[in-house]
Amino acid sequence: MSTEQHSDSTHPGKAPRTERGRRTLRKLLDAAAAEFGEHGFHEASITAITRRAGTALGSFYTYFNSKDEIFRALVDDLSGKVREAARNARQQDLPSLEMERASLIGFLRFAAEHKEIYRIIDECEFVDPASFRQHYQSTATRIHERLTEGMRKGDLRDNLGEAHAWAIMGMNVFLGLRYAVWDDTAAEDVAELANSILREGIARRN
Amino acid sequence: MSTEQHSDSTHPGKAPRTERGRRTLRKLLDAAAAEFGEHGFHEASITAITRRAGTALGSFYTYFNSKDEIFRALVDDLSGKVREAARNARQQDLPSLEMERASLIGFLRFAAEHKEIYRIIDECEFVDPASFRQHYQSTATRIHERLTEGMRKGDLRDNLGEAHAWAIMGMNVFLGLRYAVWDDTAAEDVAELANSILREGIARRN
Repeated sequence: MSTEQHSDSTHPGKAPRTERGRRTLRKLLDAAAAEFGEHGFHEASITAITRRAGTALGSFYTYFNSKDEIFRALVDDLSGKVREAARNARQQDLPSLEMERASLIGFLRFAAEHKEIYRIIDECEFVDPASFRQHYQSTATRIHERLTEGMRKGDLRDNLGEAHAWAIMGMNVFLGLRYAVWDDTAAEDVAELANSILREGIARRN
Repeated sequence: MSTEQHSDSTHPGKAPRTERGRRTLRKLLDAAAAEFGEHGFHEASITAITRRAGTALGSFYTYFNSKDEIFRALVDDLSGKVREAARNARQQDLPSLEMERASLIGFLRFAAEHKEIYRIIDECEFVDPASFRQHYQSTATRIHERLTEGMRKGDLRDNLGEAHAWAIMGMNVFLGLRYAVWDDTAAEDVAELANSILREGIARRN
């Protein structure tokens, strides 16, 4: 996620003004991901985060007022990284189903390399329910936009709505938990399986 | 969930021997669902559970040794109720896709009436990760068994496996969160939408 995206009004921390500041903020967020991912919100501490980041305690308070605040910033950061991983895996002008396949491969690879993301997003339901909702609502909105574009192009059947986006997101999230976080199944194989459901469902064709 | 199922070796609490004991255990589990659902695991207390249940503190310790133990028993109980709600909504000998539709309607209605279930199962990821895994693994196994039966009967295409079951479960869980817990959309409408994906996917047919 770019620092530009961090400067918007929803970002709970303070935006850095210098390149050095941006590097410090990045170190703090990466350290927070490791700390919250390993110990969970309640056991994690600000001093453990700054120790992992190799920064002074004062640097933490330059950007965040509390453990809650860096947790919310981290969820926002991870949410942006998931979005970016899916987006980078896609190419322009792919047919709609190939677009979904590429997005899922990007997400599965990201989850496999950042297995802590599920624990952090899931714990967010308890630490900050509004950010939890926001993460899934905005993911569903992006899928819905792609479905709408696919209907416009004539790739997809023309009665798809937001609920179909939620169904696809749920499929992707659970496949990621089972096959990228708990296991290390090849992302392409999992994505082909999900894609086959979107392509043809599961019924036998006569 | 029947008390018979409670007496199996995986049940973390002690099994009651009398009808009165069964009623007390039921009251404690229902009170625990309300208490954990409202306050979360960390804020919930044993005395608040017995107060809600209208039982003496000693009754709690007849069946459970700790807050952890009643939480695990509650997840096991809710997991069984979800299974039962889906099973009761089905009839024997439905075509496979109608079986999936009926199961999902049963699940969505149960979730709409027990909105606390998501919070409790999700918090289980942190309180007792093994039970969390067990809940989803056993749900996926049941779906996988139905898919296997559908392939045998010739209703479903013959290359479906456990991963398809995880995809279907993810779809159902997210539709339940969005449309049964956060919202009150009619279960039939949500189930028809999910069923249409299983029936034909989302691609335009030429």
